[in-house]
Amino acid sequence: MTKDMLGRKESITVEEAVRRMSGGLPDKEPCVETVGIDDALHRICAREIKAAHDLPHFPRSTVDGYAVRSGDTFSAAETMPAYLGLSEEILMGREADFVLKKGFASKIPTGGMLPGGADSVVMFEHVQTVDDTMVEIMKPVGPGENVVQRGEDIKAGETVLDKGHRMRPQDIGACAGMGVTRIDIYKRPVVSIISTGDEIVEAGATPAFGQVRDINSYVLKGMITESGGDAVRKGIFRDSYDDLRGAIAGSIKDSAMVLISGGTSVGTKDMVAGIISDLGNPGVLFHGVSLKPGKPLIGGVIDGVPVFGLPGHPAAVSICFQIFIRPLLGRLCGVAERFPQYRHMVVKAKVSRNISSPQGREEHIRVIIEEREDGLWAIPGMSKSGLISTLVKADGTFIIPMHSNGIEKGGVVEVRLF
Amino acid sequence: MTKDMLGRKESITVEEAVRRMSGGLPDKEPCVETVGIDDALHRICAREIKAAHDLPHFPRSTVDGYAVRSGDTFSAAETMPAYLGLSEEILMGREADFVLKKGFASKIPTGGMLPGGADSVVMFEHVQTVDDTMVEIMKPVGPGENVVQRGEDIKAGETVLDKGHRMRPQDIGACAGMGVTRIDIYKRPVVSIISTGDEIVEAGATPAFGQVRDINSYVLKGMITESGGDAVRKGIFRDSYDDLRGAIAGSIKDSAMVLISGGTSVGTKDMVAGIISDLGNPGVLFHGVSLKPGKPLIGGVIDGVPVFGLPGHPAAVSICFQIFIRPLLGRLCGVAERFPQYRHMVVKAKVSRNISSPQGREEHIRVIIEEREDGLWAIPGMSKSGLISTLVKADGTFIIPMHSNGIEKGGVVEVRLF
Repeated sequence: MTKDMLGRKESITVEEAVRRMSGGLPDKEPCVETVGIDDALHRICAREIKAAHDLPHFPRSTVDGYAVRSGDTFSAAETMPAYLGLSEEILMGREADFVLKKGFASKIPTGGMLPGGADSVVMFEHVQTVDDTMVEIMKPVGPGENVVQRGEDIKAGETVLDKGHRMRPQDIGACAGMGVTRIDIYKRPVVSIISTGDEIVEAGATPAFGQVRDINSYVLKGMITESGGDAVRKGIFRDSYDDLRGAIAGSIKDSAMVLISGGTSVGTKDMVAGIISDLGNPGVLFHGVSLKPGKPLIGGVIDGVPVFGLPGHPAAVSICFQIFIRPLLGRLCGVAERFPQYRHMVVKAKVSRNISSPQGREEHIRVIIEEREDGLWAIPGMSKSGLISTLVKADGTFIIPMHSNGIEKGGVVEVRLF
Repeated sequence: MTKDMLGRKESITVEEAVRRMSGGLPDKEPCVETVGIDDALHRICAREIKAAHDLPHFPRSTVDGYAVRSGDTFSAAETMPAYLGLSEEILMGREADFVLKKGFASKIPTGGMLPGGADSVVMFEHVQTVDDTMVEIMKPVGPGENVVQRGEDIKAGETVLDKGHRMRPQDIGACAGMGVTRIDIYKRPVVSIISTGDEIVEAGATPAFGQVRDINSYVLKGMITESGGDAVRKGIFRDSYDDLRGAIAGSIKDSAMVLISGGTSVGTKDMVAGIISDLGNPGVLFHGVSLKPGKPLIGGVIDGVPVFGLPGHPAAVSICFQIFIRPLLGRLCGVAERFPQYRHMVVKAKVSRNISSPQGREEHIRVIIEEREDGLWAIPGMSKSGLISTLVKADGTFIIPMHSNGIEKGGVVEVRLF
């Protein structure tokens, strides 16, 4: 890697950094566990789920009406009804264990089972009762009309849910309908968070002058949880080579990913990069990205485990997570989501002031959304990425791409909501 | 209420139904519980959170460099540097318990504490070391440059998070930064699900002919959980007035909302409506909505508790939940979300075929999204709303509004992703 005049590695583009990290990961299937479907919401299918039986396993009426042989109704009309004999009534939840004779009709509720011989249902609205033994059918029905056929919802042997599918409420409903009450899912990948920095103390502690409480590991834990990972805070470590090396080496053994948070100064960054490269192959894959905030990001892989050395600023942590960590974590979760690029909440808004951005880096701007008479406006906040309050006040971010000089007041941007 | 020719109550518009339910709810604050911030993700703040102290509680450097009195650097330039004496180095995490004398500079790391007297930091890049006692400053800094002032992130007494705020990762980070490790949140509202239908059996049972397994209560439980509620399945009840009345009356006592699922036939619907009106004031608020799927929906309030009698078809359950139940559940959760109308994942796509829809009802069409060379297409699935598989295969839904006749092939629609 080339170095700049201060001896720092030169930045690479966001795209290239994503490519390197993605290429550095081995394809490894996550561990599998079995859970009841009540605990499966948003979990990832570890095996495809096939139907053992037809659903429904008998033909059902979709309306309240009369089960008939459609051929008996072909000439029916309001002026010239078809007269059918009244057969036994079909009760909800009971087997219709008879064959409907030609020229007969059976009263049937929505969801009721069609008897043998019947192939369709005439809606109540089109039937008049003559007496206890006979009805008038005023409208013809075609074969299969107002009926869900056996196996029409799901056929025996059909694959209903694919491996890698994220379980939505309706998917759990489909499992219940098939009688699948336990499913194999992927375990949540463990993501270790190592906090560094001689100035960092626990959130519960009272910081002396010169000290601040840990913020980033809490932001990270929340984002990891949202993304389906199992976040483990390993604690706060001093900025010493041995302490940090021990913490990283230990975490590599029991984690699917390791995030090192803090250590904002150049010296610490170089130490983190050094440890990542010392610990295993291929080590550091990039050190510095053309991104604001987030430039000092370090990415690497140790023995198949992705490792990130994150910038110290909360806003940079949040952006780096979105861009680099979330997609990688998705892979470690085993999720094969359809159209992941659209799975964000986005609003269009007009920018409230000119924003310039040097070409050659991608810039993420935090904004507050305001609803005015002429639509939504995006109000850029303070750009100090070290302040957690700028992230708390913001509703989302928009991107000024690498090859743009910025955006003028009134220009429309897509704001990705937090 | 007026009735149609079959004696059913006439449908009202979706808007009117939403208005009636919303108006029928008393304004009642949810119960409060206290949790550690590690368990607070996506929970709702029950009290506003104020900062007890300034954050940071001392001025910090945002760069690696030299802390100075800005006045000492005003005339500095590369050709004519300002020469400053070297004062003691500031260490990370340590109090800078001295006053920087005029004409002096102190080496300081990013995040380090500024000593008394210093008001700004010159970056390393603009400083040359002369010897052990002196540095050359090659660029002037203004007062406050490269410094985060005491309280600049969060001021003591400032309201950082409002009551009703949904906790995002950065909000938890801010709490950690302020030393707030436990917060008051609203308890999840209990939503009872009562399954009805003589044909319904448990997901774990083997249905006889005429019987089917419970699907809807699983779909509902998933959607309630996604929306912040605490779903309780009360079990499957026969279609008998006494059984159902007992189940509903019991649930009203311990729930913030009651959902009655199933009972697709007109007779059962009328029974459910009758029980809701018998049990308390104001009883049924509407019975039938100009909506497809979802027309037979019943909405009511019993003693301040909203009650819905849901259609039996899974697709109708899903749509009714989105439109009617989710916003109401948000209110019961105590959430005051900014711009809830935008908090969905939406993609624009072209419809793959003509779809007609009669005026006078709002129609929700389930679609599969396909990526083709000319962009995204929305492929409408089968319209049989009784099939769970149509919901499982679908990626989302789009709406044909009440006053539209439908949409032509190639027309662009907004698909709300599941």
